[in-house]
Amino acid sequence: MKKIFLIGAGLSASTLIKYLTDNSEKHDWKIRVGDVSVETVKEKLNGHKNAEAVQFDIFNEEQRNEEIKNADIVISMLPARMHYLTAESCIKYKKDMVTASYVSDELKAMKDDVEKSGILILNEIGVDPGIDHMSAMQIIDGIKEKGGKITAFRSYTGGLIAPDFDNNPWNYKFTWNPRNVVVAGQGSAAKIIVNGKYKYIPYHQLFKRVERTNVINYGEFEVYPNRDSLKYRKSYGLEAIPTMVRGTMRRPGFSKAWNVFVQLGATDDTYTLENSENMTYREFINTFLKYHPKLTVEGKISSYLHIEEDSSVMYKLRWLGIFENEKIGIKNASPAKILQKILEKKWKFEERDRDMLVMQHKFEYELKGKKKEITSSMVIEGKDHVHTAMSSTVGLPVGIAVKMILTGKIKEKGIRIPISKNIYNPVLQELQEYGIQFTEVEKDL
Amino acid sequence: MKKIFLIGAGLSASTLIKYLTDNSEKHDWKIRVGDVSVETVKEKLNGHKNAEAVQFDIFNEEQRNEEIKNADIVISMLPARMHYLTAESCIKYKKDMVTASYVSDELKAMKDDVEKSGILILNEIGVDPGIDHMSAMQIIDGIKEKGGKITAFRSYTGGLIAPDFDNNPWNYKFTWNPRNVVVAGQGSAAKIIVNGKYKYIPYHQLFKRVERTNVINYGEFEVYPNRDSLKYRKSYGLEAIPTMVRGTMRRPGFSKAWNVFVQLGATDDTYTLENSENMTYREFINTFLKYHPKLTVEGKISSYLHIEEDSSVMYKLRWLGIFENEKIGIKNASPAKILQKILEKKWKFEERDRDMLVMQHKFEYELKGKKKEITSSMVIEGKDHVHTAMSSTVGLPVGIAVKMILTGKIKEKGIRIPISKNIYNPVLQELQEYGIQFTEVEKDL
Repeated sequence: MKKIFLIGAGLSASTLIKYLTDNSEKHDWKIRVGDVSVETVKEKLNGHKNAEAVQFDIFNEEQRNEEIKNADIVISMLPARMHYLTAESCIKYKKDMVTASYVSDELKAMKDDVEKSGILILNEIGVDPGIDHMSAMQIIDGIKEKGGKITAFRSYTGGLIAPDFDNNPWNYKFTWNPRNVVVAGQGSAAKIIVNGKYKYIPYHQLFKRVERTNVINYGEFEVYPNRDSLKYRKSYGLEAIPTMVRGTMRRPGFSKAWNVFVQLGATDDTYTLENSENMTYREFINTFLKYHPKLTVEGKISSYLHIEEDSSVMYKLRWLGIFENEKIGIKNASPAKILQKILEKKWKFEERDRDMLVMQHKFEYELKGKKKEITSSMVIEGKDHVHTAMSSTVGLPVGIAVKMILTGKIKEKGIRIPISKNIYNPVLQELQEYGIQFTEVEKDL
Repeated sequence: MKKIFLIGAGLSASTLIKYLTDNSEKHDWKIRVGDVSVETVKEKLNGHKNAEAVQFDIFNEEQRNEEIKNADIVISMLPARMHYLTAESCIKYKKDMVTASYVSDELKAMKDDVEKSGILILNEIGVDPGIDHMSAMQIIDGIKEKGGKITAFRSYTGGLIAPDFDNNPWNYKFTWNPRNVVVAGQGSAAKIIVNGKYKYIPYHQLFKRVERTNVINYGEFEVYPNRDSLKYRKSYGLEAIPTMVRGTMRRPGFSKAWNVFVQLGATDDTYTLENSENMTYREFINTFLKYHPKLTVEGKISSYLHIEEDSSVMYKLRWLGIFENEKIGIKNASPAKILQKILEKKWKFEERDRDMLVMQHKFEYELKGKKKEITSSMVIEGKDHVHTAMSSTVGLPVGIAVKMILTGKIKEKGIRIPISKNIYNPVLQELQEYGIQFTEVEKDL
């Protein structure tokens, strides 16, 4: 019998819990799921005989050590910044650990201790990061094995609303963390490489520098670059690649309208507005516009940012209600916080809605003097409000990896991400059973 | 005999040192000047019999305590972030202290200790901050005493090049710290109030939101808003003022061209560029522009930012040499660092050049049902490359304040800025002897 300790039973853990309990009989697993809200866990476990809910506080060192000591493997679905706590106990009791998050700096700093302890900490095995790594590496290794030379790699992901439920002019709803969407792209300039030239795109230009792409059966999307598109150049073995871009997908027209908020300064989360609790939405927008004795707020925004009043951008803005005289009612709020409140009302992911996860890789490569292109696309629609596309694409790779570690199929040790063949091949293989697969189209350029 | 200890003998201390030594005979002062470079001090003291140069390290606690213990008053002309060290020793040995810098957060935190010790730490008594406070308060108190109600206050300062030496298309040279000019306005949005409405201007809009103003005999200037225009609302007793803007002055056309660098992202100091040492100026600019198979860098910048190739903006850019194939030659440089290098070559404040300090306050007020406007302007040109306008406008108010403290004319204690009548009146009075005075024009609106 193997004991799995899963920490965190939030939104993205639903499908993972189902995978683990579904597989528990066959593999003789006992699953303990710890969360600050034991009720949440109980609801998700639904009385499964091989699973147990625990009230769990990650900051309680004694409890953490006790639980991890008694487990054979630990999964952390908490926010990335908390993983180092779990990792400390895993090192201490020599237990393998799996997460769907980026390798944090705190975790990187523990490299030596992890290696000394002889354990595996497998990270970034969710969807993005996760499925993106695995599906890209499968193609990259395939091209290299044929003797091809990769000259361009574009990789795009988007968490969106499924077409049947896509019923607003932004073609967007909050299927992921709203705050992350509002502040997306802030910080240092985005970095890409195009035909051997590094390109740096500051935040205030990011949503003007979009590319367009098509996904079979799903039509057109637009893509804005992620912060550091070159982060995985080395891990992917593409050190000398002339073109590499990672980006976030939206439906066409989103970025142009979103850029209005960026240009106004309405996405800023670094300061609070005076008297925000008594401000209306209209006053909020007006606060970013130059004083004018006669022009309306709509007129000022139109002339300031060169947007026609009858444009689709202005329609999107009006639809959000930002010109209404409704009170905001949040004290000491930053612009980002107020904007988020406005958006949460209008971009609400309703109970009946289903989400959609879109991923696309585009490779250009040369083989025997010929230029070719591979476009590999995946679209997953959520099953319902609990088993969302996000929950399944994040949870299933984690669950499969845990199974592979417990059954001895993954033997690596140390701090890892899923870029080696012996991990990505079986994981991608099993994901197909759940309908998670890519459609590949190859053509000559 | 009174002993003055002056810390820091940099550029802005030249006129201060002259003022102190010139007054030392009459007032029986002994002046010690400490700096990391004792040679710099010796050069500035020029063997004056009442002054002594000391090799001084602010981080050497023992030396710091020893010097401050033996002094009657301490002046710190070091960067503001180092003042708390001096303040610690001043509190310990109960010595008054004077600085020309903003009150830092570290200093604010020492409020209780300063008060317990019974000393005065007088800050912000240079030019900006300093002369701006004093000259504004004199007018504000004057209007209030007449029974007037102030409805608008705009306050502008610029460190510029004197007209006779203004011979480049930007009408600008580095008469102040170049780095501060390159990163000016970065961080949280600028905050102003106009007709009772708060306005927040994000950095990427700052240089588009300029106002124009005229200064008698000196013609037209443009002004972009400072970070927090409302910082002194309370200190000035203008809590309910409907319009208040503090800004930085440039010659017309500067901001529009500078905005190109802001829009490109070339003023960013938060990350370093790949391979910056081998990059040319032209490649540096190209790194912020979208890849295009045919367009030149000039053509791309022109279409990206909607600048005509024959515009004065493009002329200013070409004049800087940013399109040249010259190597940058700085390793791991941020965009801001590279831009500064380019600018330092072209905006050099030459030995023969003289600087200019411009300050203007504009008040609107109501008196007995009538609307009036006061415009108060000051222009100071530097005498030479050592006794610059900056050095005299920073150093003289400091020197005068020190004299007033030593002669018992300033009796306040605690952490202060020069906004009370018994400080600003005599300081402004004596500054007139040095030609530092405002021209006031009043008119009905």
